[in-house]
Parts: sequence; C-alpha cells; structure tokens
Amino acid sequence: MNDRFLRACRLEPVDATPVWFMRQAGRYMPAYRALRERHTLLEICRQPELAAEVTLQPIDAIDVDAAILFSDLLLPLEPMGIPFDFVKGEGPVIDPPLRSVEQIDRLRRFEPRESLAHVLDTIRLLRTRLADRVPLIGFAGAPFTLASYAIEGGPSSNYARTKALMYGEPDAWHQLADTFATVVADYLTAQIEAGVQAVQVFDSWVGALSPRDYREFALPHTQKIFETLRPFGVPTLHFGTGTATLLPAMREAGGDVIGLDWRIPLDTGWELVGEDRAVQGNLDPTLLLGPVERMLRGAYDVLQRARGRPGHIFNLGHGILPSTDLERVRTLAQFVHQQTA
Amino acid sequence: MNDRFLRACRLEPVDATPVWFMRQAGRYMPAYRALRERHTLLEICRQPELAAEVTLQPIDAIDVDAAILFSDLLLPLEPMGIPFDFVKGEGPVIDPPLRSVEQIDRLRRFEPRESLAHVLDTIRLLRTRLADRVPLIGFAGAPFTLASYAIEGGPSSNYARTKALMYGEPDAWHQLADTFATVVADYLTAQIEAGVQAVQVFDSWVGALSPRDYREFALPHTQKIFETLRPFGVPTLHFGTGTATLLPAMREAGGDVIGLDWRIPLDTGWELVGEDRAVQGNLDPTLLLGPVERMLRGAYDVLQRARGRPGHIFNLGHGILPSTDLERVRTLAQFVHQQTA
Repeated sequence: MNDRFLRACRLEPVDATPVWFMRQAGRYMPAYRALRERHTLLEICRQPELAAEVTLQPIDAIDVDAAILFSDLLLPLEPMGIPFDFVKGEGPVIDPPLRSVEQIDRLRRFEPRESLAHVLDTIRLLRTRLADRVPLIGFAGAPFTLASYAIEGGPSSNYARTKALMYGEPDAWHQLADTFATVVADYLTAQIEAGVQAVQVFDSWVGALSPRDYREFALPHTQKIFETLRPFGVPTLHFGTGTATLLPAMREAGGDVIGLDWRIPLDTGWELVGEDRAVQGNLDPTLLLGPVERMLRGAYDVLQRARGRPGHIFNLGHGILPSTDLERVRTLAQFVHQQTA
Repeated sequence: MNDRFLRACRLEPVDATPVWFMRQAGRYMPAYRALRERHTLLEICRQPELAAEVTLQPIDAIDVDAAILFSDLLLPLEPMGIPFDFVKGEGPVIDPPLRSVEQIDRLRRFEPRESLAHVLDTIRLLRTRLADRVPLIGFAGAPFTLASYAIEGGPSSNYARTKALMYGEPDAWHQLADTFATVVADYLTAQIEAGVQAVQVFDSWVGALSPRDYREFALPHTQKIFETLRPFGVPTLHFGTGTATLLPAMREAGGDVIGLDWRIPLDTGWELVGEDRAVQGNLDPTLLLGPVERMLRGAYDVLQRARGRPGHIFNLGHGILPSTDLERVRTLAQFVHQQTA
C-alpha cells in the first residue's frame, strides 16, 4: 500500500510528501457534476454505491495519497433529532434551528451502526474497492462547528446566536457540546471499526472564537473526542481555519496532525503546534484559480517552510473551490511529489 | 474638549481610557430604527441633516469619547463609476460587479468636494453641533476591502473572484487598488479639510489574505493612503479583522493606531504592532449579547492586558451587532471609564 500519508501522520520518514485535498471529491470534478444531475447531495451521501463512486473519482483522476469518505458534516444531526436539508444556492438549512434549552434537552444520542449504517457500508465497500491503493480517511465535525450550524440554522458571518447561547446559557451550551462530542466519538468509533484508517475532525468555523472562549467552550469537548479515539491507535487529524491564535490550544485538545490554513506561514504554525506533532496544509485554495506558475510558487513556499521534516502532509488550507479546474489539482499533486521525492 | 481619544492616539497619558464603538450609530439604537422607518440607509448618508442626527444619537445616549461620521464605506464607488444599492436583508449589491480589465480602465478619480459634497457638509454641520464635546472621526475603506466588494458584487465567504483577479491579472489588480488608494486619499483629505479630527481606514476583510499576499497586493496601496495623509498631522487608525498574522505588515502600511480584533489577546497584538504605536480594541461584540457580568469580565481582561499603558483606545473587535441592547453599550462605556479613571 501507498502508506506515505499514514507514515507522515506518525512523523515517520516518507519517500515523498503525501498529498490529499479537502473536497477532492466534489463539484469541481466533471464526473461528480454529471452524477449530481441525477442525484441530490443527500442521495449520494446515503447510497453506498454512489458515495463510494464519488469518493473514488479523485483517486483515479489525481495522484493523491489518501481517499476521504464522501459524506457531509451534518449527517449526524438528523438521527439526533435536528432535521436539515440543502437548499439550492444557499447551502444547508436547519429548520427549526436549535435555540432553546428544551430543544437541547430533547436531543438523542443514537447508534450510528443503525442510523448511519449507510456510511459504514460505504466505508466497507471503499476498503474493498480501494484494495489498499491508498488509505481511507473518515471524518466528522467538531462540537463547536456542528453546534454553530444547528444554532444559526446554516452558515453565519458572526456566530452571534451561537455565542449568545454560550455566554447566556453556559450549562445548556456545555450539555449541547457534550452531546455532540459523544455522538461524534460514537460515530468516528463506528467509522474506524468499519475500516477507515485515519479520521479528521473538522472544526472549520472555530476561528470565530477568541483563545479564551476556545478554551472554555470548545476545547474540553473536542478533547473528549480525541481521548475516546486514542485507544484505537488510528491517526487523528484536527482541522480549523483562522486558527493562528488557537493552535497551542488545539494541540492540547488533540490530534496527531494539526491542520493549518494559509493565514499562517507553515513554519510559524508548526512551531506553535510543536514539532512532536505532524501538520497538514496549507496552500490558499484560491491560488488554484490563478496562473499555474503562481500556484506552484505558493506550493514551493509551503514545501520550503516544511524543510523536508517528517510529518508534513500537503493539503490546501481549506476545501477545493467548485470553480477549480481539475487539471490544476492534478498538476499541484504531481509537483509536490516531484519536489519531495 | 474631551481629548482623551486624541491623546491616546498620540500615546499621551489620559485621565481615563477613551472609548468609542464601531457602528455606535446604527440599527441597535431605537432612535436610529425609528428614523430608518422613514428613510433608506443611502438617504440618511446623503442628507447632511439626517447623517448628522444619526452620528450624534450615541453621543447623547452613551458616554463615548469620540463621534464617528455616519456614512457607508461604499459611497466613493458610485462617483468612480461603480453603481451599487442596498437590498433589504442582503446588504450591499454591486451590479454589475467589477470583473474585467475594461471595467477597471473605465474607473474615474473624482473630486470629493463635488461628488461627495454632502459628506463634507455633514462633517461641517457635526463640528458645529458637537461644539468640541468630543472629536469627530472620519473614515473610508482600504483598497483591498473596497475592491473585494466591487469584484464579488457584495459580501463574500472566500473572496475567490477577488483573489483570482489578483493572481491572474496582477497589473489590473494593482491599477485597481491604486485607483482606490488615490480616491480614498483624496476623500480622506477632503474629510480632514472639512474638519474631522482623526481618520480610520477600514480594511475589514483583509484577514482573508496570507501574509505573503498581503505584502504583495494590499500593503503598498494602503501605505499610499497613510503616506498621503501624514502631512496633515491628524491621527490615523488602521483597522482589520482576522489579522493576527498580518499585524507587523499592517504596522508597516501605516496608522498611528492599529485596530485589533478579539481573536488575538490585546497584549500579544500590541507586541506585534510595536509599543511605539497605539492600539484599539478588542472585545468580541457578541459578548454584549450575553450576561452583563461576562461582558464586564471580558472588558476587564482587555484593560488588564493594556496594563494602563498610554495608547490604548477601548473598542470592540468589530462593529456593534444590530441585536445589541443599548443599555449594555452604555454599561460597558461606563465600566471602562470607571476602571481606568
């Protein structure tokens, strides 16, 4: 098996820097768009054959060193008792949003082997189809990011309602975040048992918090997830954006690999994370929309800052944008391998 | 005159830490909402009597140490040849958005004393009405932030089109940003001549850039504005959000006072800015939506980190949110004064 990715997670030397991309399966790929003409996002997520097909699309098209399960962060919400849907052009809509202590009290822990059995079936199917070509990454959202979707009712620019709940009803917040932590830990455990070889926890929107609030309201819950997963010995990745001032606390919360975004130079970020952890990142995804030379200069800079030290996984600082040209992604992956082989 | 604010800008000792709030005039105020029932935002901006009335509303209601001209960042766009409007519930819409080199070529430098005469009339009216109670702050947007509105057509989550232009057509970008810098420098010069006693440059969205891109695409243009204003001897403030990794470069770009948001502890931010500059900030505006005790604890923490050193202006890390209770704002301003007197 191509085990570069897993070796880098464990800070072991590699034959070339491993590369994968957040949203490497998705709307920028013509093959995915063709499938989306016939199926909704949730249909694809819920049908193992389709989800596996989409997961594999970039593995065939791009020279990446890991596959990531095609799924959506919000899937665990429905079996908890928080219905949601995707509205064309608007993204996820959670209706009614979670705003009261009564609603939080009614949330349920659930058995992922029953309620999200289709995800676990997808994982098993993928392990067979991948036949050890590259490792398979599972994932879930972190409590702050999941809670912010549920409370705001969708994406937000300021997280005002989420923070108002945190500040105004801290007990309810902690109960909610703990419920999410339990659900996510159960879900990731089930994913590991079904066969994923690494898991990434996405705390995509946590950069909205001050370091002080992160420590009080997010850290303990995210930490619970990583603590629960530790005995499985499967590499864990911890990702967020806008986290320049949160990195030392994110390290404390857990993760063998800490994700960095482009707002912090990779070497500065790695110093804050600590050299006994691996890092993942951190090219600005918008660089893939410009000229190829500038994109490669940016990638070269990232690699220079990693200085060939073991424990760097090349990725973007956030997901591939839908308007990205597939050829650019292919060129980028090849460049990283060529430069570091 | 209450000159605490101006003294703090100049790093001089003060009798109490000066306080003002971004968006201290606006939708959170019942008096403003009453006026908005009869007038649109642009009507208020364009009628000196109304703009002056709104500017003064918080001066009467809250114990703040500065007034800030009520206006909108986008006003200079129209006389440059970029029409826009405010659509209810959506914010600003620039239609057609600025996407081509031809459009950029057609942009005009204009004479603010003619095209934005109403703003200068508002300033003169305000200086009379304020009768030196508190100083009056003028403002404008920084080139990156103005360009991002014009190119995206409104607010954006990833600034993909803005960055695609930067990377793909760097000459066109620099021409555009230089035009904005010239227009903003002209506009702020006219504001100073009309009587504002300090000016703030808002680069609200610049935190989307990597430090490398900031230096290449934003810094030189913002710097041009501050260089042009320097001979007037009026204090200048330089504000952005999500700027933890940009602060040393923002300092280089200019500003006697550098704005900090809540994502960075005030003392850490001040160190990056340098002790020979003043700083402004940095309470999370969402803290005003929660219990008063937590808000005051947060404010106390900000003041502790400022350690009573000359050169701290208390403010939020971004504007007051519309759902904020006026009484909270009043309590916060009083608290800062009491703690530091």
